[in-house]
Amino acid sequence: MDKVTIGTNATICPMPVTLIGSCIGGRPNFMTVAFISRVCMDPPLVSMGLNKRSASREAILENKEFSVNFPTPAMVKEADYCGIVSAKNTDKSMLFPVFYGILSAAPMIRSCPLSFICKVIETHDFRSHTCIIGEIVASYLDKSCLTDDKPDPKKINPLVLTMPDNHYWTLGGSAGNAWSAGKELMEKK
Amino acid sequence: MDKVTIGTNATICPMPVTLIGSCIGGRPNFMTVAFISRVCMDPPLVSMGLNKRSASREAILENKEFSVNFPTPAMVKEADYCGIVSAKNTDKSMLFPVFYGILSAAPMIRSCPLSFICKVIETHDFRSHTCIIGEIVASYLDKSCLTDDKPDPKKINPLVLTMPDNHYWTLGGSAGNAWSAGKELMEKK
Repeated sequence: MDKVTIGTNATICPMPVTLIGSCIGGRPNFMTVAFISRVCMDPPLVSMGLNKRSASREAILENKEFSVNFPTPAMVKEADYCGIVSAKNTDKSMLFPVFYGILSAAPMIRSCPLSFICKVIETHDFRSHTCIIGEIVASYLDKSCLTDDKPDPKKINPLVLTMPDNHYWTLGGSAGNAWSAGKELMEKK
Repeated sequence: MDKVTIGTNATICPMPVTLIGSCIGGRPNFMTVAFISRVCMDPPLVSMGLNKRSASREAILENKEFSVNFPTPAMVKEADYCGIVSAKNTDKSMLFPVFYGILSAAPMIRSCPLSFICKVIETHDFRSHTCIIGEIVASYLDKSCLTDDKPDPKKINPLVLTMPDNHYWTLGGSAGNAWSAGKELMEKK
């Protein structure tokens, strides 16, 4: 394959689309974040990068709590809107029906099939972003998204994002079973 | 919507599937990693969680370099295999055709359409995993994956992963334009 270099600003392909919930001035607020992943199995830790200029970062550093919500393709306008406008000049508190778990500054979005709430355990500042590491303390799923008592990704129906083409996508078709598809190669060796 | 709680081990939905390249005993090695994201725009930083028992973690902490490679659905057996077997007891150096950029301990996989190479800048230890933060110093794309001189996600054709159902998926259909779909809501307000 002929390779071309494409600079240093490459992004993970694809990225998840999450709405990060925080509490600003006593009201729920949500910001779109794609720079997020699990980073530890035990304890269950999430790492995310928040722009230093964002109102959400400030609120999360103050309250030490946040939520992670997974919007569906039907919510693409709202999900995108939360990445375009800042709580610094727009009140986003009425955009979604919210509910709360055991953390009072981590509002969750009722219309998102999957949400979890986290306590901040570490933060690391870089030039443009702060890396916030949070521990998942509870997670909530629409009962209708269970299949055989397990979360069903096709029912959760998450959005994904690619850059720099800046497109949202749905989850496609099955491409195999994890911790299984590779066993065939083990037997060969 | 009726919500059910599903414990604290919730995962990001969906996760990317990457093959992390390192150099072990002078040979290329690759491990499957889904706990990975960008975490800063400037500088371009990647954060990933590696199991403390993995040979890759040890090698990356020693060499301070690694690569991130994006396998396609056609490579699902190899991608899964690299998550099942450890370099501690299996030589994975002949599994893929490799190439190198400017970092000698960060082998890349020629058959992966997209790869990037990183220098380690910080590490943070947690109970089961180490969070490794790397700066992207170069990225490489198959020339055939460009459309209008931009990386085309449909041509890159990445795998994605969901847990705890443990399935691999392809990228689905378009669900809208980012930094655009939400503008309609701005005009309404």
